[in-house]
Amino acid sequence: MPTLINQQYRLAARPVGAPRHSDWSFTSEPVRDIADGEIIVQTIYISLDPAMRGWMNEGKSYIRPVAIDEVMRAGGIGKVIASRSTKFKTGDYVCGGTGVQQYWAGAADDKAAAFHKVDPQLAPLPKYLNALGMPGMTAYFGLLDVGQPKAGETVVVSGAAGAVGQTVGQVARQKGCRVVGIAGGQEKCDFVVNELGFDACIDYKAGALREGLKQHCPDGVDIYFDNVGGEILDTVLTCINLKARIIICGAISQYNSTTPVKGPSNYLSLLVNRARMEGIVVFDYAARYGEAVAAMGQWMAQGKFQTREDIVVGIEGFPDALMMLFEGKNFGKLILQMGEE
Amino acid sequence: MPTLINQQYRLAARPVGAPRHSDWSFTSEPVRDIADGEIIVQTIYISLDPAMRGWMNEGKSYIRPVAIDEVMRAGGIGKVIASRSTKFKTGDYVCGGTGVQQYWAGAADDKAAAFHKVDPQLAPLPKYLNALGMPGMTAYFGLLDVGQPKAGETVVVSGAAGAVGQTVGQVARQKGCRVVGIAGGQEKCDFVVNELGFDACIDYKAGALREGLKQHCPDGVDIYFDNVGGEILDTVLTCINLKARIIICGAISQYNSTTPVKGPSNYLSLLVNRARMEGIVVFDYAARYGEAVAAMGQWMAQGKFQTREDIVVGIEGFPDALMMLFEGKNFGKLILQMGEE
Repeated sequence: MPTLINQQYRLAARPVGAPRHSDWSFTSEPVRDIADGEIIVQTIYISLDPAMRGWMNEGKSYIRPVAIDEVMRAGGIGKVIASRSTKFKTGDYVCGGTGVQQYWAGAADDKAAAFHKVDPQLAPLPKYLNALGMPGMTAYFGLLDVGQPKAGETVVVSGAAGAVGQTVGQVARQKGCRVVGIAGGQEKCDFVVNELGFDACIDYKAGALREGLKQHCPDGVDIYFDNVGGEILDTVLTCINLKARIIICGAISQYNSTTPVKGPSNYLSLLVNRARMEGIVVFDYAARYGEAVAAMGQWMAQGKFQTREDIVVGIEGFPDALMMLFEGKNFGKLILQMGEE
Repeated sequence: MPTLINQQYRLAARPVGAPRHSDWSFTSEPVRDIADGEIIVQTIYISLDPAMRGWMNEGKSYIRPVAIDEVMRAGGIGKVIASRSTKFKTGDYVCGGTGVQQYWAGAADDKAAAFHKVDPQLAPLPKYLNALGMPGMTAYFGLLDVGQPKAGETVVVSGAAGAVGQTVGQVARQKGCRVVGIAGGQEKCDFVVNELGFDACIDYKAGALREGLKQHCPDGVDIYFDNVGGEILDTVLTCINLKARIIICGAISQYNSTTPVKGPSNYLSLLVNRARMEGIVVFDYAARYGEAVAAMGQWMAQGKFQTREDIVVGIEGFPDALMMLFEGKNFGKLILQMGEE
């Protein structure tokens, strides 16, 4: 095999506020030879996720921070182009921690990368980074295990047109819940209602979230799946029912803040309503991913479950594409295409 | 019976910030005659609770607000001095919603007052407003039902020398937990450790809460029972363990604030730690109070369970006595004595 050149984005500096171009270094190096038990994966798609912003910070979290000068962590889909492992063969498509780079080389059973095979015949590859990947698993287990929805309850989800929100709402619909999304802009709201089948969607940018919640949740809010934090979380807290469950999945409105995170001023609504706010981290459910893939795969096959991806092409676009998330500019699960399928 | 004159504190105005004397009216009126099924209760003790501040506000909560010009709501202990009911006889001691007044007249089975008999031979009357009353029930069910403590876990409780805190810590000790209190001032901390048997107590006024938590909770915090909110809640959130439970019982630091409540900036620690924050309202457990009284009564009889009351004498002292709670000036469960036993 001729020497392959691997282009990579590495973390150059820990961002203060929104990540800037100077927080990244764009490097290239030859792909190294592999030893017994190792593989080379050519990255095709990587997932761009709000959580990536957290990985760029120092400090204790649910996963270690990306080190300075390390290749940026990312989940991706790629093709095995060389294998000295019995686990994967050349031509296999795999999903795992490729990082923001064109090629990944290492042990086929590397724990951090955690590669597993995916079948491009069963679903288009980008779906494995959306409903059939981390965002889907997060939505499925966060809603069902933490939220414990019952038929007839009202579920509200923020970031409704985003990767996690799409799936939360559709799973909740399958469980017989009334589903109300919150999204930014009429186009996203229309998509969520018309394409994904939510009962309603409130455009928070229109400035009448509380009125919208009152209108579309006439029986109050039983479950709120929060991807955004900030003012939206605070507003939903004023509309929750007795024994409501609030699933804390993320707080994209706060990740680039240079002032302290805005805590939910209305948290005492938890007391008044004997309600519960609980965090979810998807990795806790790794042993049960198959269960979620089977359920959602079946709904997809039955035409009851849609997903939408927003695919940006070219590794050079990584820094700007990542910022789309925080500016609400992506429409659907944001994916960066790094190479040809 | 000669005409009895009933002195009362009524809500004159809804307070802005800390209640002032002008927010109260001190009135008197003759005690009315009673009809069939009714009783007159002479109030002996009333319970002064942080929750009373919330009842003075307008707006939806777990209980309706006290109306302007209404006698202030309070739980109390009194003696039945006249009865035309078969439920209670003259001379019975009862516990229920007496209000801040010397005499209560009405139906023996009044739902809001919810009187039930107490036995002064089994325990001194003030205990029925402390561990054997609402604070004790709140502590018992909040800790055990919401917190689900397991032997060996670390439980932290704020307001540790207060009515709820005392009981939370002692119940947790009975369940085999390591118990660390947070209280204001060395004297309260000494009491909590030396008299109540907590493993440690941190004086938050000494200004090193985080260091104290690190020192006294070497294995992190599994359960935090929060009575205070504000900075203390935010600091404890930085020390919680995976799957921690935070019981929101109150937020005394915030009740008189004229600015918006300070939400917990560190609430994303719930996400990182897959932890849970949940509110408790004691009335939900009314059907099970007997269970708690039996358990704590037994521990008291075995000399394993202490409580401390701080008794202020005289109805005229009500407005200032209530403020002691918010200034941390009470030492033990705060009670106002309205009449002789």
